[in-house]
Parts: sequence; C-alpha cells; structure tokens
Amino acid sequence: MTIDVKLLTFTPDAAKVVAAAAKLCYSSSGAADLFNELDNNKIESFLKKLNESGHMSPFEHVSFTFAVEGISRVATHQLVRHRLASYSQQSQRYVEMSSRECIMPPAIQNNTDAKSIFKKQVASAWDCYEKLLSIGITKEDARFILPHGAETRIVISMNARELHHFFSIRLCKRSQWEIRELARQMYVLVREASPELFKLGGPSCIVYGQCKEVHPCGDPYKDMESMLIK
Amino acid sequence: MTIDVKLLTFTPDAAKVVAAAAKLCYSSSGAADLFNELDNNKIESFLKKLNESGHMSPFEHVSFTFAVEGISRVATHQLVRHRLASYSQQSQRYVEMSSRECIMPPAIQNNTDAKSIFKKQVASAWDCYEKLLSIGITKEDARFILPHGAETRIVISMNARELHHFFSIRLCKRSQWEIRELARQMYVLVREASPELFKLGGPSCIVYGQCKEVHPCGDPYKDMESMLIK
Amino acid sequence: MTIDVKLLTFTPDAAKVVAAAAKLCYSSSGAADLFNELDNNKIESFLKKLNESGHMSPFEHVSFTFAVEGISRVATHQLVRHRLASYSQQSQRYVEMSSRECIMPPAIQNNTDAKSIFKKQVASAWDCYEKLLSIGITKEDARFILPHGAETRIVISMNARELHHFFSIRLCKRSQWEIRELARQMYVLVREASPELFKLGGPSCIVYGQCKEVHPCGDPYKDMESMLIK
Amino acid sequence: MTIDVKLLTFTPDAAKVVAAAAKLCYSSSGAADLFNELDNNKIESFLKKLNESGHMSPFEHVSFTFAVEGISRVATHQLVRHRLASYSQQSQRYVEMSSRECIMPPAIQNNTDAKSIFKKQVASAWDCYEKLLSIGITKEDARFILPHGAETRIVISMNARELHHFFSIRLCKRSQWEIRELARQMYVLVREASPELFKLGGPSCIVYGQCKEVHPCGDPYKDMESMLIK
Repeated sequence: MTIDVKLLTFTPDAAKVVAAAAKLCYSSSGAADLFNELDNNKIESFLKKLNESGHMSPFEHVSFTFAVEGISRVATHQLVRHRLASYSQQSQRYVEMSSRECIMPPAIQNNTDAKSIFKKQVASAWDCYEKLLSIGITKEDARFILPHGAETRIVISMNARELHHFFSIRLCKRSQWEIRELARQMYVLVREASPELFKLGGPSCIVYGQCKEVHPCGDPYKDMESMLIK
Repeated sequence: MTIDVKLLTFTPDAAKVVAAAAKLCYSSSGAADLFNELDNNKIESFLKKLNESGHMSPFEHVSFTFAVEGISRVATHQLVRHRLASYSQQSQRYVEMSSRECIMPPAIQNNTDAKSIFKKQVASAWDCYEKLLSIGITKEDARFILPHGAETRIVISMNARELHHFFSIRLCKRSQWEIRELARQMYVLVREASPELFKLGGPSCIVYGQCKEVHPCGDPYKDMESMLIK
Repeated sequence: MTIDVKLLTFTPDAAKVVAAAAKLCYSSSGAADLFNELDNNKIESFLKKLNESGHMSPFEHVSFTFAVEGISRVATHQLVRHRLASYSQQSQRYVEMSSRECIMPPAIQNNTDAKSIFKKQVASAWDCYEKLLSIGITKEDARFILPHGAETRIVISMNARELHHFFSIRLCKRSQWEIRELARQMYVLVREASPELFKLGGPSCIVYGQCKEVHPCGDPYKDMESMLIK
Repeated sequence: MTIDVKLLTFTPDAAKVVAAAAKLCYSSSGAADLFNELDNNKIESFLKKLNESGHMSPFEHVSFTFAVEGISRVATHQLVRHRLASYSQQSQRYVEMSSRECIMPPAIQNNTDAKSIFKKQVASAWDCYEKLLSIGITKEDARFILPHGAETRIVISMNARELHHFFSIRLCKRSQWEIRELARQMYVLVREASPELFKLGGPSCIVYGQCKEVHPCGDPYKDMESMLIK
C-alpha cells in the first residue's frame, strides 16, 4: 500500500493566467489583452521576477486538483491543517472500511520483527472492527478501534501560491515521511503540468537558500531535479 | 463606460469534478474511478442533492477567473471584502490614470442636471490630477484627488462555492447597482460555462425562497432566467 | 475519559465590541465614541437585529480560546476541517503517548460485549505501540498502530461568527456524538461568558426554525435551554 | 486630518496564551495546566524560539482590535486586501459625508502650489456632492464624485500572526506612506500592550535581516526602537 496521487484537473494556460494577472497591476492595458499578447519568454521572465520578490498573490488565480489513495489518516490529519485549500475525504461514518488496509511506515517494513508485530496488530484491529459491527455497533463508533494508519482517500485542491507554500514546508527532509512523499508526488505532477510555474518552487533550502528549522537535517537538497526521483 | 466582464479561464469538467469529489465521501471507490464513471444524468441529480442539503464544500474544487474592465474603485472596494477569493488589480501607485474615465451611476446619467454637474466635476478632477503630476507630485499622491468612481481593472478568481455565496448576496436587488451588474455578468458567463453547477444558484429569494433583508425590495425575482437578461 | 473543555481566555467586553463595530457602519461617529456610549439595552437590541438579518461580520471582532482534553483524534480530524479557526494540538510525533487512553463511544460503553472487546483491543494496541518503541521504532512511526480513538489535547480559537456557524452545524443531532458534546460544552461556556452574543445562536432547527439535513433527526430542539443540560 | 488609531480591545494574557498553546504541542500536560505554570522568563524564551523557527501558528490564538479614524479610502482599499483579518467600515451608502474631509498627502502639504490646488479641488468635490444630493441623487450615487482620499473610519481585528505579517510588509519604507503610518501606530499600540509578543516583529529588514523588494529603499531600519518614534 503506497501513496498514489493523480492530477484530476487544473486551470488551463496556468502560467499565462498568472503572468497576465500580475502584469495587469502595472499596465494600462486590460487583462484579456495582456493574456493574448504574452509569449513563453515573457511569461517565464515575469514569473521569475514575481517569485524572487515574493509577490505571490497572482499565483492564486490557478488551481490544481489531486485524487489521492493509499494515504493514512495520520497524514490526512496533518494535511487538512493547511487551511487555504479544499478537501473531500472518504467518510468513516458512512463507508464501511472493508479493505483492511493500514499504511506501514518504511522503518517498520524494513525491520522484520516490527513488521510482523505491526501486521498482526493490524489484522486484530480489523477483526475487532468487524466483530463490533456484527454485534450492532455502528460504523462511526466501531472505527474508534481502527489503527490511525488506516487507509483513506481524499481529493485536494490548492492554488499555485498555496502549493508553493506547501512544497516549501512539506518537501523539507524534517517533514514526516508520508506527507513528504505526498508532496513529492504532487510536485512531480504539477511540475510536469506547468513547469514555468513550479520549477521555481521547492523546499526552503532550495528556494530561500537557507534552512529555518530548529533542528536542521544537515543534508539540504542540492537542486530541484533530485525532487523528481524517488 | 460600462462594466465589461470576460471569463478568462476555468477548471475543465467543472461539474464532473465537483460530483466526483462529493461522491468520494460516501463511496468505497477512488476519486479517479468515480470521475470516469459519472455521466451527465448522475452528475445533475447529485449536484441537486448537494445544493439542497447545503453541503457545498465539494463546489470549492473548481474555480473561475474573470477579467473586469469599466468598473469603479467604489465597486472594487466592496468586492475585495469577499475574502475567499483572489484579486489582481491595476495599481494607481504605478500606472498613470490617463483614460480620464469615471463610472457614472445610471441615476445620474438619467438626470440632465446631475449629468452635467457630474461630467464637469470629473473633468476638473482630472485636470487637477494632471496639474499635480506636472508640478512634481507622484502618481500615488496625486490620485487622492481622483473621483472615487474612477475606472479600474481587476482580475477575480472565485471557486464555485464562493460564487454561489457571492450571487446569493450580490444579485439581490438591495445590493448596489454596480456590484449587482458585475455579479449578473459573472453569473451569465459561469452559467454558460457550467450550467449544471450554476442553474441552482442565484439571489436568496430564488435559492432559499425567502428574503432575509431588514428592508426587502418588495419585488423578488420570479426565476433565474430573468437574471440572464439585462 | 470524557471531554473536558475550559475557556482559556476571550476578548473582554465582547458584546459591546461587536455592537460598536456594527454601529460604525451606519453612523457618523467614530468606533471609540460609539463603544463608550453603548448601554446594555442598546447592545442587546442591536445584536438581535444583526443576527436576524444575517449581517454577521461584526461578530468576527471577538474571539474565544478553549483548552480541550479527553477528545479523540477521530473528533479532532473532523474539528480541524473548520478552517476559519486556529488550532494547536498535542503532537504524536514528539510526545510519547503514555496515558494509554482511548475515547470509548457511549454505544460501546453501554453494550457489555462491545465494551469488553473494545477494552481488550485498546490494551493490545498500546502493548504493540510500546513494543515497537522498545525495538527502536520512533514515536512518529509506532503511532500508526494506535487506535484512531486515542486521546489527544487541543487548543481552539474561534471568533464569534465562526462559533455561531460551528454551533449551527455541530449542535445538530445528526452531528457525531463526540463533536456534538464538544460543541455543547463550548456553547455552555461562551453563553455564560457572553450571553448577549450567544443566546441567539444554536443548531439550525432553533436559529432558522427549519432543518436542512437530507435525513432529519425527527426530534428538533425545542429551545436553547435544552442545550445547556447534558 | 491625520490617522488616529486606538486599541479598542485585545485578548488578555496574550503572550501567556500563545506560549501555553505552543507548549501543548510538545508536552504531555494539558493547556490549562501549562498556562498556569508559565512565568515571564519561560514565556519570553519560548516565544523567541517560535519566532526564530517560523512556527507562528500559536500566535493566531490572540487577537487585537483597533478603531481607526482620519484614514483615506485609498488606504482602506489597500488595507482590506489583507484577508486574514476582520473589518467593519463606515458606509458611504448609508452615512452622509458631512465632514468634507480629505486626507492630504504630506508631499502635497509641503508644496505650497500643490496644497492650494488640492484644497480648492477638494472643496469643489464636496460642493458637487452636496449639489447632487440636493437635486435628489442618493448618497450611494453622489459619492462617485468624492475624492478617493475622502476620510473614512474602520474597525480592524487581526490576530498576532497576521499582525507580524502585516508589520513585515507595511512597516517597510517601500510601503505607501499612509498605510505605513497606520502600521506604525498599530505597532506602537500592540508593542505596549504585549511587548513579549511584538518586540520580535517588524519590517523584513529587521526581522529577516534582509530586503526582498525589487527596488530596495537603500536605507533599512537599524532597530525596532526607531519604529516607535514618528
């Protein structure tokens, strides 16, 4: 069970929309005209300038929607703390959890003893869940006994400004492995969909050239390309 | 000088994305599969149910971007109070206001005396602005003398949930004429772009069948089609 | 283990601040003068008018902060979906979960078989968590095996507008029992702290006199006082 | 006519609330106990650590409310673009603008010619406004002719996190003089109300030790004390 992220949809002409909106602020032309006049070179140099100066508000005009499976409720509880985003999540009140899936952390997978203990416990939690359902307990109450790592599914929409912020925090090596892997897959997808908008983003060590963590990882990223390889 | 609104871009397959995200909450399938299985009939009946029950959060996953010209700073000052939206506006600090345009309210246009007084005053305000620039005052300071009705340009992005809220308030006949005309043009555009999502929206008198205003207009809308005709 | 909510702090003179801010919109006086002139009768009649007309934005100027214990991560995952609020939550990454507490739903408490199954499973989950820690698995990874109902602690701040919205949804009998009990305790506390602001709030059946749920509970509240008794 | 800002109200024990909420995340104690145990030294060292690491979310739990007079609608149009805040503003639709006040930029005040031109134009704008009212034009339409610099009044609430962000941008010398003066007065007031929370804040050149503006002012602030003197 590993995270699986799909880019469900996104604003067409994303980079051009951002550049036209930004240009409007400093121009006597209208946005529709600016939009039509922009070519790729102009877009790129303009986005670079915006990004460097931190004037990120035009990045809000374009939005990206992801369908995520194979993620734990541990990770979605962290994820939904990002409030400038929209979420639709599979309900444990209404949907019976029949897949018996629980996300297993890599450190547990790679430890024979831990793995065996973990798998046994996951199975017993699901047995208990099903037992509770069978004696008349509702799904919404029985789920209290499910492991926190139980698989869930979620649809996420974020605009490009929030994505830049999300990546700067969650691609960081001090971020938890699962939300970091989510961020990495999201980054790979949006970078392919709109390279102009996202090749400028990344974790703080890349974008700001410095780390603000109290306990730095000691091994900052060298470049954005390293992001793209698992 | 009248408001001119263009729909610059919007999320493709908007109604389908909303329906798939909403269905995910109550289904054991993933969002990408749900997205592929949905046909138009299912989408419509599902959106209707969401709208009736007020579970509007899935409407946040799709977003619409508008380019607006011929609008006053009176109206944009009201507009940007809608905080769940994104804006990029022509700057009076950086752009010289050379068009000498000021939005004239219909009640003034339709009153010969008022119109003549208004036009004269607008011209004198612009003369003053230009005079101030000519003696070395900066644009950002000279603009204090420009009429509040001076024309501006703005790019607006709102998701479909916020649009429903915006329409419920701003299509109301108690809303100011200018922001109401902006709302009407936006409504016409999104209703054409995604009829499934927006034929359910409108002012409170239509959507909720009742008026909550302290001083009702006394002439509630009969149906949404009347919205579509100026 | 039951929910325990304390009102940690809140804006002083809350009702007066809301009334003064609202009056400013329609007055030629300044807010500080309006604030000083308001007496209790004026405040009450003014708040009532605001609430009836749905002009709730002045309610945003005052804010309430709660310290919550004895709540499950099931409930906090729901809670933090309310995005117009601020949260600080005990971290399972950094804090060892030594209390071995898990919230037990009343329906399970009241069912002898279910209760015994549940308690045994909770104990075995904690044994597993401790075993994993003892063989070198980190807290952040071991917690995947903890029950979703494990106890957590959280500080919540909401302004009075968001509280009214929160109560309208979460005091509803169709809301899950745990977040409903959280809402009830929060309601009791703020109603005592600022009766003028909150005696107008409550679930939809009380405030709007109608239910919008797809599946209504069939037993709407009669009055707000019933809220105040557990 | 100069900006006049009053601190109307704010969360009691602000620094202690922030510190207790932050400590909760890393502690096995509850927030109410942590709140009671904190002394001033612990609060200060803890806030410093939070600020340095950029973990600013606990600063959201406390909020400050300001009553502002003598500010132009030019400045409030900028101000209300800060969306993570609450505003109540004097309405030009409902309140007759009888004060005939318009904010005069310092650069115009200090230029005899400009000042004379400006004052004459302001007077003629108000004459026109009154004339339009006298022939039956409503306040909401007549105001289109008022100068953009016309005085307005506004109540502002921001939490301490947003205030830190607001100060970092608006105390910058590249920010417009009027909103900068608003920010300065707000800063002086909150720094007096809660020195522990705000002595760590300020413009980017102070807080981050570097300027991100495309066109830097060339004269960065030396220390925060210079902020406190007009």
